[in-house]
Parts: sequence; C-alpha cells; structure tokens
Amino acid sequence: MDVISIRDMAKGDIEGIIDRAGQIVDKGPGNALKGKVLATLFFEASTRTKLSFQSAALHSGMEYIDFLPEMSSLKKGESFIDTIRTVEGYADAIVVRHPKEGSARFAADAIKKPVINGGDGANQHPTQTLIDLFSIKRSKGRIKGLNVTLLGDLKHARTMRSLVYALGMFGADVTLVSPKGLDMEPAYLKEMKERFDFKISIKNEPEYATADVLYVCRIQQERFADPYEAKMVTDKFMIRKADLKGAKEDLVILHPLPKINEIEGSIDEMKQARYFEQAHNGVPVRQAILEYALR
Amino acid sequence: MDVISIRDMAKGDIEGIIDRAGQIVDKGPGNALKGKVLATLFFEASTRTKLSFQSAALHSGMEYIDFLPEMSSLKKGESFIDTIRTVEGYADAIVVRHPKEGSARFAADAIKKPVINGGDGANQHPTQTLIDLFSIKRSKGRIKGLNVTLLGDLKHARTMRSLVYALGMFGADVTLVSPKGLDMEPAYLKEMKERFDFKISIKNEPEYATADVLYVCRIQQERFADPYEAKMVTDKFMIRKADLKGAKEDLVILHPLPKINEIEGSIDEMKQARYFEQAHNGVPVRQAILEYALR
Amino acid sequence: MDVISIRDMAKGDIEGIIDRAGQIVDKGPGNALKGKVLATLFFEASTRTKLSFQSAALHSGMEYIDFLPEMSSLKKGESFIDTIRTVEGYADAIVVRHPKEGSARFAADAIKKPVINGGDGANQHPTQTLIDLFSIKRSKGRIKGLNVTLLGDLKHARTMRSLVYALGMFGADVTLVSPKGLDMEPAYLKEMKERFDFKISIKNEPEYATADVLYVCRIQQERFADPYEAKMVTDKFMIRKADLKGAKEDLVILHPLPKINEIEGSIDEMKQARYFEQAHNGVPVRQAILEYALR
Repeated sequence: MDVISIRDMAKGDIEGIIDRAGQIVDKGPGNALKGKVLATLFFEASTRTKLSFQSAALHSGMEYIDFLPEMSSLKKGESFIDTIRTVEGYADAIVVRHPKEGSARFAADAIKKPVINGGDGANQHPTQTLIDLFSIKRSKGRIKGLNVTLLGDLKHARTMRSLVYALGMFGADVTLVSPKGLDMEPAYLKEMKERFDFKISIKNEPEYATADVLYVCRIQQERFADPYEAKMVTDKFMIRKADLKGAKEDLVILHPLPKINEIEGSIDEMKQARYFEQAHNGVPVRQAILEYALR
Repeated sequence: MDVISIRDMAKGDIEGIIDRAGQIVDKGPGNALKGKVLATLFFEASTRTKLSFQSAALHSGMEYIDFLPEMSSLKKGESFIDTIRTVEGYADAIVVRHPKEGSARFAADAIKKPVINGGDGANQHPTQTLIDLFSIKRSKGRIKGLNVTLLGDLKHARTMRSLVYALGMFGADVTLVSPKGLDMEPAYLKEMKERFDFKISIKNEPEYATADVLYVCRIQQERFADPYEAKMVTDKFMIRKADLKGAKEDLVILHPLPKINEIEGSIDEMKQARYFEQAHNGVPVRQAILEYALR
Repeated sequence: MDVISIRDMAKGDIEGIIDRAGQIVDKGPGNALKGKVLATLFFEASTRTKLSFQSAALHSGMEYIDFLPEMSSLKKGESFIDTIRTVEGYADAIVVRHPKEGSARFAADAIKKPVINGGDGANQHPTQTLIDLFSIKRSKGRIKGLNVTLLGDLKHARTMRSLVYALGMFGADVTLVSPKGLDMEPAYLKEMKERFDFKISIKNEPEYATADVLYVCRIQQERFADPYEAKMVTDKFMIRKADLKGAKEDLVILHPLPKINEIEGSIDEMKQARYFEQAHNGVPVRQAILEYALR
C-alpha cells in the first residue's frame, strides 16, 4: 500500500494508523515487520523524517539501507525512475523525499513495492500530517470539536493545507492566523468548507486566546521584498512567554520543526510546549505507517 | 577468501556461487552469515554496488557499517592501507571500491579478513560479472552455446573484458559490436581464443539478429573528439523498439546500469528488457559471494 | 549514565569498563544491549570513533542511526540543542562529536538519555583514553609502575592531557617528550602531581630507552611559523626502525591514529607496533562503554 497523500486515504485508514501508533507506544510494536528492509531515498536534506523512519524501522525489527544522492549514479545522469526501479529490488518498501512535486506518486506508479512519500516539494508530506493528528489526539484525548489555531506562513508551508484537510475530516474547528499576504489560498478553503462540516476562522493578527492547540510554522524572511518589513512581521508573530498569559491553561503548542525564531527559547521548558514530544511521536506513527504500507 | 578478480577464481567456485544464488532465490538464505558485520568502503560514487551489498548483508542476517570517505581521516592525510588496516578490526569482511587499479588486491594483501573488490577503476568488477553470468543462466537456463552479443564501447567499459573471459570459460559464443575505434583490444581477444574453446565475432555496425542475449553498455560522448560524431555514433548504436523486430522472440536484453541514452525508454516495458531484474539479482548473487568470502 | 570526561569518572567505574572490555574479548558480549538503538551524531570528520562505535553497537546486538550534518536541518538554521532534543526521541543513547569545546556536556544537560562524548574540539575524548588504558593493560598485564612515554606535540594533542590524568590515577610513571615550545602546560602538570602519586619526567629530545610503552602522537607542521623548522622538528621526532635498537625488547608502541609521518612505515610490521590492535580495541572498549552508559 502506497502512502502518497492524505487525500488518497480513507478516514478509517487514518484512524487505524493513529490507533495503532498508540498501541505501539503502550504495548510495543510486536513482530509484524521483523526481517523486512526499508530503503530511505532522500534527495533533499532532512533530519527528522529520515532518522525517525530509520528509527521506526529498527524499533519494529526492520533494517534499513540509506541512499545518499551525492554518492550515487545520479551524477552519471541516471533518471529518477531508473534509480527507483533499481532500489525496488533491494528493499521491501521505499521512503522517498524529493524536491519536485509529484515525485512520490511518479515513483509509486513505476514500481510494485510500497512507496511512502517523505515530502515532495511544496506538495504533500502525509506522514507529518499523521504525526500531527496523533500528537493532537494523544495530548488532548480527541480531535473533534477542538479549536486548532494554525499560525505562520500558511501560503507556503508544506504541511498546512493537508493538516486543514485532516482537521476538517476529523471535525476540529480551525483558526488560521497569518501575516497579510501569507494567507492560505481562499479557493482551497472554499473547497474544504464544502467538503467538511467544520468552522474556519481567518485572522491577520497573532491571536490564540481561544486555541486548544496552537500549531506554529515558519515565516520565511525570504518571502518579503523588504527586509525591514520581514523583521517587523516575524517579530510580531513570534510566540513569547508573555503572550501566553492570555492563552488557555492546557494549551498544547506544536511545531513541525526545525524552528528558527518563531518561538522564544524559554517556552521550550513550559509544559505547553509539546513540539519535541511531537517530533518523538514520529517513531511510533511511522512504525504504524510501515505496518500499513507493508501489510 | 578474497574476491578480487574473476581470473583468480576456479570455474567450480564461480559455478558454486551461481548455483548458491539460485538456491537463495528459491529457498531463502538460511543463517550462515547471521551476526557477521560487513564494512562497505566506497571511495567512489555508486548506487547499485553499495546498496545491493548492504541489502545482501541484511537479507542474510548480517549487519553493515558504511565508511564515507568525505567524513573520514583521509582528509587528515591517512594512507589507504592504514584505513583498511583500521577497519579490519571493525568488521568480518570488507567491500572496497576505489578509483585506482589494483587497490582491492593491495588491500587484500595487507589484511587477513576477506576483501571483496567492488570495482577498482577501469580494472576489475568481479561481482558484476558474477551477476551477469547468473542473470544469463537464470533467464536462459544455460550459458553454454548461447550467442551473447556485447554492444557499446568495448574498449573502455570496465566489466566487458571480464565478461568475455567468463563467457569463454562457460562456452558461450560472443559477438562484439562496437563503433570503430572503440573495439575490444585485439591482443586480449587473441589470448581469450587461445585459452578457451569459443567463437568470437567482431562487428562495427549495430547488429543483433542472431543474439540470444544482448548485453548493452555505454558509449561515453567524451570518448570522441568531435561532438557531432559523438552524437551520430551514440544515435546509431542506441537500441530502439523498432530495431528489435528482427531480433529473436526470446531475446534477453541486459545492461549493467546506470543507463543514460543507450536504450529507448519504451523498451523498459518489454518482456525482453531484463536489466532491472539483473540489477535485483545483485542481492542473491552478493549474498552467495558473502557466504563464499566468509566460509 | 553520561560519559563526558575522564575526570567525571570514579576509578572504580574506569576499572569496571576496562575489565568488562576484557571479558567481552574473551567471552563475547552477551545480550545486555540487544534491541537498543544508538545514534551517532558527528559534526566533524571521523573514521575510527564513528565506525568503531557503530561496530561496537552491532556486535552487542544494538542497531544504530547515523546523523549526517550536511544532510540535515542544520542548514536551515536549527540550533544544536534542538537537534539533540529531537534525536533523543529516536535512540536510546547518543554519541556526539562536535568541534566546539563543551558541546557534549551541553547536550548531556539538555536531555535525559545518556550522551557519550566522541570528542569535543581540543577538550575531551574520554572513550579514546579508555581504549588507551585498556590497550596498555591488555598488552603489558598492568598499568601501575610502567614507564609510559608520551611523544609528540603535547601542547595541542587532544587526548594527551586526559591520558596523563588517567595514568596518574593508575600509578604509571610518565615521561613527556616533546619539541621545545610544544610541552604540556606546566600548571596542568603541577595539578597532576598534587593529585596523584606518580613521577613525571620532561624531555625535549626524542628518548625512549626506558619506556615500557611509547605513545606517539602527531606534531602538526602548522604549529610552526617557519616551514624549515617544522620539517627539522618532525624529522627529528619521527620514530625509525634504527632508533628502536636501544629500546626495550618488549616495548609497546601505541598511536591514536591516523598517523601521517610520525612513524616510519617499516615499523608497522614489527611486533612492538600495537597501534592497529589499539584501534581494534575500540570495539570491545566501546561495547563496555555502551553497557556502562545504558545500564
């Protein structure tokens, strides 16, 4: 079973993965994957996604081989698909990250073994969305009815569109907070509202007094023509300890990481900060994804 | 037992490896290598050789450590042999790829643990030749008496000389097809004819009507002084779907990969195209080689 | 348990690791570490330390994940501590090498899982010192009362200060031989003499007639303003086969490797040369260290 996009997946399958990840945390992974080999093919820099897939594989009794593009035949001019077709023979499943949109689906169509999308450009990063859902469910006990506030550059952030889709599917209310000009595309939001029964609020000022979950993502300075404006906006949207006084006591702060300067350092030590836990959730969720892909 | 060159190996040993690889495909690898550690030391880019050795090790219950020259003490000026002598203590067998001819034998002479040559410059690549023999045997049921046509730059291609040697040893007839000026060295062919009882035909036009196996290798544009001539020649020797009409119905097309533009893309989907299967054969053949080296 | 500096460790713990390493060589490692995962995070080039930790992990039934800084989120500007906090969730213990002094302790303070210092700049390299002690004990049967001569640039060499500390702790007599201007810091030696009951002799000429163990380290040409003087000094301090005639018959020569031109090549084949064995000792000693860190 390939894992290319959240939108390909049935709600039941997503719930199945989230539930199974919880079981793995509570009772261990069992032996379902023992002896299998995972190939990690990352054509782009990554710490979290690659290492947590490798860690997930090892913790489930699998092994991995790691393809390093700089050390490969790509230099000799081999096509992406030839590389994928070759590696198919070396492993039982392949995780692909590639800067070009559509690469993972292209790979999945070319081979029989399961392909998992580890991020294809600005397009999809479904395993991150599954980790986000699991992190919300695990910390708050539910997803339905929560106010989940997404804050940052919602126009460009890879995972935010998929997350809105998934939150709609699970019935959370979504508040979108972004600097003017970095809003999520209105046509996309229109589609979401037609498809799912959930509330979407849109704001251009940093605001999260009503949030149950505050999901922060980056605002890249390069998006602004004027460096002065860039600094003004990133400063204004940075989460500071002082700002949290108005927030709910049991607020959960998430971030896909790496974080640069979106969150003041002192917040790391607060109980609301759950982003490292979220990163660590990558292991059991990806163990559940590997089981799903290889079943 | 070191594996440095096909010419070092007795025919019985080569047959043993090919037969054992077939058993591994049919019945699994068993536990002969369980708990051993392989070191892969690649001083040159490689996808297939390194990953398939690592995959072979894992599928036989071994583990691997991977030496990345860019991250190593070589930068500090350590000699190749000091590196090899150090790594000897970390693993049970070492696969070495190095751009300099003779490196693998040099390494094997310096240490007691088995060294496997993963390609030393333009010299030897014995594990590729073993995969080629296995791929022919597995797809055609035999090697003896087949017409194996080698097509491409036979002057520079690393593996072609060893393959002619091995085909002579196993009694295939060989047709050599290369652009003028890129022929295999006549003195080498004379030696082959004196040593083995087999037919060698030489052609300078793309021709494979009588071939049972068509083994294609690259023609590097850099070999030609005149870019226009380079393009003319590579175009002329490219294998196209249309050209295959005159070929035998059960032709088997092999290629050591990576391929660039030697074979028209649409051929990939034809049943005659067996080069990805050949790449995948790297795993069981290298499992058999690891067993041979470590027995 | 973190392993950051030899000076943090009780003598009993050091003895425990050395004894356990001997047991591992003699009787195998057992299953204490089976199923655990080690993360190797090397922000600097290394062959020996990284590969021998990975080999140690595999030989003890552990697995490893390997963090490659060039392929990571560090490029995106992530802080060192955020990286460490993230990787904490992927592994049971972390080995860190980093060019900045104090990095390993900084990492250890930030997370709960054990951190092992794989070398932090010119500061500490405790696992090398443990290998040195084990290599002396294993080859000579004891440490107490031996004359251990350290030769080379004792001002800058990373491991020499820790080694003097450890030799003092175990009651060896130490002779320090270094070119003028590259002596070990007098204040440090004063502290050592006050702390431990052992003899320290200081020489500026190459001399090792009384040595039981000759521990050679590099003299980097870059330390000299005048290239002519650099060559004169490195030539003078190079160990040559002819010079060994005046040495003890059962002299043991050690070197942390990589060696460049401190030791004449022909010495490698002599029975006194034990530096490759010393490198190989990295595996059992690091197995014992992993057991200590994870117990």
